[in-house]
Amino acid sequence: MSQKLNQLKEILGEVADLNHAGSVLSWDQQVNMPPGGGEARGQQLATLGKIAHEKSTSDEVGKLLDELKKEFAGSDSDESAMIRVAARNYDKATRVPAEFVAEQSIVTTAAFEAWVEAKGKSDFSVFRPHLEKVVGLVQKYISFFPPADHPYDILLDDYEPGMKTAEVQEIFGSLRPKQVELIKKISSAKQVALRDDFLHKKYNEKKVWDFSEIIIGRFGYDFSRGRQDKAAHPFETSFSVDDVRITNRFEPNSPLATFFSGMHESGHAMYEQGVNPAYERTPLAGGVSSAVHESQSRMWENLVGRSLPFCEQFFPELKKTFPSQLAGVSAKSFYKAINKVEPSLIRVNADEATYNLHVMLRLELEIEMVAGRVAIKDLPEIWNAKMRETLGITPPDDAHGVLQDVHWSYGLFGYFPTYALGNLVSAQLWEKINKDIKDLDDQIRKGRFDSLLGWLREKIHVHGHKYDPQDLVQKVTGSRIDSAAYVRYLTRKYSDIYGL
Amino acid sequence: MSQKLNQLKEILGEVADLNHAGSVLSWDQQVNMPPGGGEARGQQLATLGKIAHEKSTSDEVGKLLDELKKEFAGSDSDESAMIRVAARNYDKATRVPAEFVAEQSIVTTAAFEAWVEAKGKSDFSVFRPHLEKVVGLVQKYISFFPPADHPYDILLDDYEPGMKTAEVQEIFGSLRPKQVELIKKISSAKQVALRDDFLHKKYNEKKVWDFSEIIIGRFGYDFSRGRQDKAAHPFETSFSVDDVRITNRFEPNSPLATFFSGMHESGHAMYEQGVNPAYERTPLAGGVSSAVHESQSRMWENLVGRSLPFCEQFFPELKKTFPSQLAGVSAKSFYKAINKVEPSLIRVNADEATYNLHVMLRLELEIEMVAGRVAIKDLPEIWNAKMRETLGITPPDDAHGVLQDVHWSYGLFGYFPTYALGNLVSAQLWEKINKDIKDLDDQIRKGRFDSLLGWLREKIHVHGHKYDPQDLVQKVTGSRIDSAAYVRYLTRKYSDIYGL
Repeated sequence: MSQKLNQLKEILGEVADLNHAGSVLSWDQQVNMPPGGGEARGQQLATLGKIAHEKSTSDEVGKLLDELKKEFAGSDSDESAMIRVAARNYDKATRVPAEFVAEQSIVTTAAFEAWVEAKGKSDFSVFRPHLEKVVGLVQKYISFFPPADHPYDILLDDYEPGMKTAEVQEIFGSLRPKQVELIKKISSAKQVALRDDFLHKKYNEKKVWDFSEIIIGRFGYDFSRGRQDKAAHPFETSFSVDDVRITNRFEPNSPLATFFSGMHESGHAMYEQGVNPAYERTPLAGGVSSAVHESQSRMWENLVGRSLPFCEQFFPELKKTFPSQLAGVSAKSFYKAINKVEPSLIRVNADEATYNLHVMLRLELEIEMVAGRVAIKDLPEIWNAKMRETLGITPPDDAHGVLQDVHWSYGLFGYFPTYALGNLVSAQLWEKINKDIKDLDDQIRKGRFDSLLGWLREKIHVHGHKYDPQDLVQKVTGSRIDSAAYVRYLTRKYSDIYGL
Repeated sequence: MSQKLNQLKEILGEVADLNHAGSVLSWDQQVNMPPGGGEARGQQLATLGKIAHEKSTSDEVGKLLDELKKEFAGSDSDESAMIRVAARNYDKATRVPAEFVAEQSIVTTAAFEAWVEAKGKSDFSVFRPHLEKVVGLVQKYISFFPPADHPYDILLDDYEPGMKTAEVQEIFGSLRPKQVELIKKISSAKQVALRDDFLHKKYNEKKVWDFSEIIIGRFGYDFSRGRQDKAAHPFETSFSVDDVRITNRFEPNSPLATFFSGMHESGHAMYEQGVNPAYERTPLAGGVSSAVHESQSRMWENLVGRSLPFCEQFFPELKKTFPSQLAGVSAKSFYKAINKVEPSLIRVNADEATYNLHVMLRLELEIEMVAGRVAIKDLPEIWNAKMRETLGITPPDDAHGVLQDVHWSYGLFGYFPTYALGNLVSAQLWEKINKDIKDLDDQIRKGRFDSLLGWLREKIHVHGHKYDPQDLVQKVTGSRIDSAAYVRYLTRKYSDIYGL
């Protein structure tokens, strides 16, 4: 039987190699590729994707899995977990016809280009026919699967295996009024505006970049197994457990944002760098789900990076590097500035108090779109009404409204909720960590992150895909994903900052 | 029948995509990859290579080729050429068993590492057992093919399709005494040493790098379809006709060498950028042979880059950029300095008058090694004796002797002769170009390279693999590869510089 397992591992190892090769090609496309290279690159990626799909959906894999499932049923060994994950991947991949994948690739490539144009012109009508096609494909995708409790479950499951729409709605339903109440309290406490002008002064790009690498190097991001490059958008990508790269950017209008996007991506990357090397080239490699991944990135960005102990640690050095920009600013006032709460239009720039509300808006819209209960042409108006209702502000145009995110052009429906779930998990883990590491604040104030990273490695990272995400969260924190810890975290943080 | 052709093109298109993906991974390995990434990268490259080999040697391809060969025989269409080249590739690939390819990969990976260590320590004994294995594999490789006029023909054919060992020996036999005589004349004319101290002063790396990009941009290297990056060794690599990249390096001891290696690699790259785009993803894509490729790189490096008209064009600007280093130096004295003749130990640093002799030495040794007429253990001694005999100098150690080149560790036997053949072809083309473009020197003096590049595009580049190399040279210059034009070129050049 171990021979069958080896056969399966060999095939899936080749699939992993093909997928990683594709990741190198995509990374190169976004970081290095000269403008002329796009057409051939698309073709190369399509070929790698096609061969990986053929190999991973072959009858041989199906037969091996059937036999191995029986053999390894009920065990909690790595092998058993590997076969479980491989069987789930196989089931999904074989349900979706190759022609559909090809059609989806064509439709979303065109939709992405239309979205870039539409956003540039702030003209939803350019994107509308493409979005209609994308939604049609999403509905068709759902039809390949057996009926679920909620059609959206099928989409969600691709990013958060096992998570149900009803559960997300329940979590969000309990969280929402508490976040709204908190925002109201903050708003009425804001008699004196927080000073944050120094965040928008002129900073030298290279100095900011180098400083960001010092920070994430101290966190524990291993540059001997990774690198940070410039790209249009910050992202993390893995070619193996020993080659996990991140990208970042510098925006002159918001120069210090580079620090926080660097911390965020390094959080994703440290997760990938910490997975058990024995899982390489198997379905257990890599982070287990979008929400658990996001819990790592948001933890390093927010619970560490935007904490007072960290500001006390890092601000004096920052001030030495940028003495004129930060003249008269203290660690505490820096801390307050980077945590300023202000309902705003753009999700990716939102503060922690309002961020999840952006996500909830998108989830509601996605469910309605997929159910066909909303006409795509009405989307901008509905979006704006929801923004008024949720945050009390109206987008001045579609670029700052319904067109702001790229996800729908890629066909990524079911992804958004995991951003908010990740925030919740980060706070759940944080409470547990602080029970296990009593002096964590002190350690952070001294610039020591090894106990924290060691804890995350042992409890989360090393397991890769071995446990399903909800089981992992339960195993580590004692409860499934819920919002209580996050509400406690936000309340404590903003009570201090705004004197609530 | 066109359906069969399309089937073949589809399969070979996927093979091309896989090979190009492998090239991206190799480029990344040499330009970007963090140290940790090596092991997984080797595995990914092996998988891409294995799948490409399986696809290109399938029975399906064999059957399609058999039928298409009959159909397209005798035509001089692109399709006919494509089938001819595809059939040759298929024949070669199917003769070599997959296990041999795997063994070769393991042996040469270890041999490369041993070579790095051996060169570092200047200790041939570290490399010796590996080189013995490599030579054994080369002999085994030859055994997979039907007997040729000369066993070395089989190796040569992989880099220079159709070229015979006897022909190379005849060409070199006629060239050698003329080059030796020229070197003697130069040596006795060198009463006054050429001043070249300014080439070894301290130059700012970034300024040199930027200047090298200005030069190759003016030559016509298209940066919208390529880029230049730093790597340990200069090389050119193509991912498609629209993404052709080069690498370069900066050596503080020889700072201006960056210009010439940049010109050299841009010559390779302009060739690849100029191939008929209709040949993309077919066996006709890319440069036709190593010698023709080298004719392009050496032409831009030497016949253009080290010419007096080019120095007159580029030196005044160079002097403005580096006024202190070049104080008191004229374009003419710069020209003489970069063309200084001096028998030296290292092939890649050799001047044009002595370069080919380094190549001849290697060809003689390779033929003896492959025939088993020389014991590998005696190689350092034989090398040194040949260096004395050829150039009158003795390597102080093996690092500057038999261990200087990486090629043998890779198993690249049959490659070296193409370096010298490329020099000869560059001069043959140059004579023809100067007949067709009467005022070429004037154009170069004015910094105009468009007629020259246009000529090369039309006569050489656009054809890709359509014509076999000797046929192409014949078609363009009226004769097969020979040394007369190169001897005329060297004699004219050095008569001027050394007043012979």
